[in-house]
Amino acid sequence: MTTDFDLTDPGLYGYWVDENVRFSDTDQAGHVNNTAIAKYVESGRLHFDFDVLKSAGTGVDEPFGLILASLTVNYLQESYFPGKLRIGTRLIKLGNSSMTTAHGLFRETGCFATSTCVMVNKVGGASTRLGPHMRARLERLLP
Amino acid sequence: MTTDFDLTDPGLYGYWVDENVRFSDTDQAGHVNNTAIAKYVESGRLHFDFDVLKSAGTGVDEPFGLILASLTVNYLQESYFPGKLRIGTRLIKLGNSSMTTAHGLFRETGCFATSTCVMVNKVGGASTRLGPHMRARLERLLP
Amino acid sequence: MTTDFDLTDPGLYGYWVDENVRFSDTDQAGHVNNTAIAKYVESGRLHFDFDVLKSAGTGVDEPFGLILASLTVNYLQESYFPGKLRIGTRLIKLGNSSMTTAHGLFRETGCFATSTCVMVNKVGGASTRLGPHMRARLERLLP
Amino acid sequence: MTTDFDLTDPGLYGYWVDENVRFSDTDQAGHVNNTAIAKYVESGRLHFDFDVLKSAGTGVDEPFGLILASLTVNYLQESYFPGKLRIGTRLIKLGNSSMTTAHGLFRETGCFATSTCVMVNKVGGASTRLGPHMRARLERLLP
Repeated sequence: MTTDFDLTDPGLYGYWVDENVRFSDTDQAGHVNNTAIAKYVESGRLHFDFDVLKSAGTGVDEPFGLILASLTVNYLQESYFPGKLRIGTRLIKLGNSSMTTAHGLFRETGCFATSTCVMVNKVGGASTRLGPHMRARLERLLP
Repeated sequence: MTTDFDLTDPGLYGYWVDENVRFSDTDQAGHVNNTAIAKYVESGRLHFDFDVLKSAGTGVDEPFGLILASLTVNYLQESYFPGKLRIGTRLIKLGNSSMTTAHGLFRETGCFATSTCVMVNKVGGASTRLGPHMRARLERLLP
Repeated sequence: MTTDFDLTDPGLYGYWVDENVRFSDTDQAGHVNNTAIAKYVESGRLHFDFDVLKSAGTGVDEPFGLILASLTVNYLQESYFPGKLRIGTRLIKLGNSSMTTAHGLFRETGCFATSTCVMVNKVGGASTRLGPHMRARLERLLP
Repeated sequence: MTTDFDLTDPGLYGYWVDENVRFSDTDQAGHVNNTAIAKYVESGRLHFDFDVLKSAGTGVDEPFGLILASLTVNYLQESYFPGKLRIGTRLIKLGNSSMTTAHGLFRETGCFATSTCVMVNKVGGASTRLGPHMRARLERLLP
């Protein structure tokens, strides 16, 4: 997904999760495997889902259940074991029945990857329009 | 677990599963990571559980539900991407409420790892003695 | 990446790799985890790199070394353990110093995910224009 | 491996590493997959290797290079996402050309898994006796 925001700017993100590079995240190319970076993105996204999106829905009686429809990861720098990283997450777009999160992955050397995730509001197996109250609450999370 | 059987002997095994080495199975030491080999063992064990152990229990009205209590893997040779492998599985021991499977992992260069898995018959959260009919059927699977 | 091709059409793909769903590919949502699907894509892409792209370069004396710059995965259906899948790969775009592969992931129920991967020709750490002979050979692989 | 030490006692361990449960560590049984627990063990072991064992060898001119020969994991409690854990590591045994580390994995609910790892001193592809100076230094790390 193309976006107007600079996903490498830590100032974009209001929610942060810490992760460790594990040895099993690396591959024989000598760096962190691209699919391990997708795991870091998922850590950031799901903690954001539980802590921010679901609590945004507290007391709202509208059907709400997110599933991942599309993942994009841009690889900017190689990462190595051992290491620590921070994953920033921000809601950047609301559709009728979907939303997009942006993610920036940072180490001491700066932003080494960015990501966008499109999630669909799926209830009973079908894409479902976001209700007006949920939408109003989610809009407040946008940049 | 120590065992009297030669787990590197393909003749021990009566049940086989094929797997592929994935690039994401490797690590920066340049070979297949030890935890990926544990994944191959799990593939062998769970297909054996579904295909052999559970079907052994068909029609037996005794409480039966296995959980993994202990895993041992012995690493004999390094493995590499790309590659194919075969996982042999055999039930080698029956306890009162547990059982042990043995696993041999083979490539064209021979046996590169062996494993034993102790599984407990756990029903409603508690270790449970294997019933007499289930035991009789499982005994037929032993070497 | 948006593309003009229908990535769910198996007819697009000329190169195929088989994979197995492992139990460790699943997550507590009860289906195959999105990052395991990224691993299947990587299996398809790297076998294609080794078997098709690098052999396309045999005898060509031009600097050539691909690294992954961007990955997009679109999730169309849930997948489950146990299961088998096929990954189709096709080169769909050539840039000055990069190229894009498309991937379709298929099970007996049809296409359950698609992907595009942008790879950069990186030599000595710097993006490098594809040489004319390599480009000519790669153009023959396009749809 | 059987050991005389109580691997569930946090007092045994003098070296600690923190880890996070990732969503991709879980499986469709609804808990952390057994192979993810092997990854936690590896995190503990390799940080210990780098920080303790290799620094123990600083200035010692004797051949030293460890490879994993055998892994045992005992699963005591189920773990879940989200969660944090601590991995304690201790050298518990020295052989002629090998050594054994013990590992305890702890959450707020106590010890959920223990592990032992046998590592061989392998130099130039061959098992090699530990030199006298290295051995003297490693002996000081034993309980």
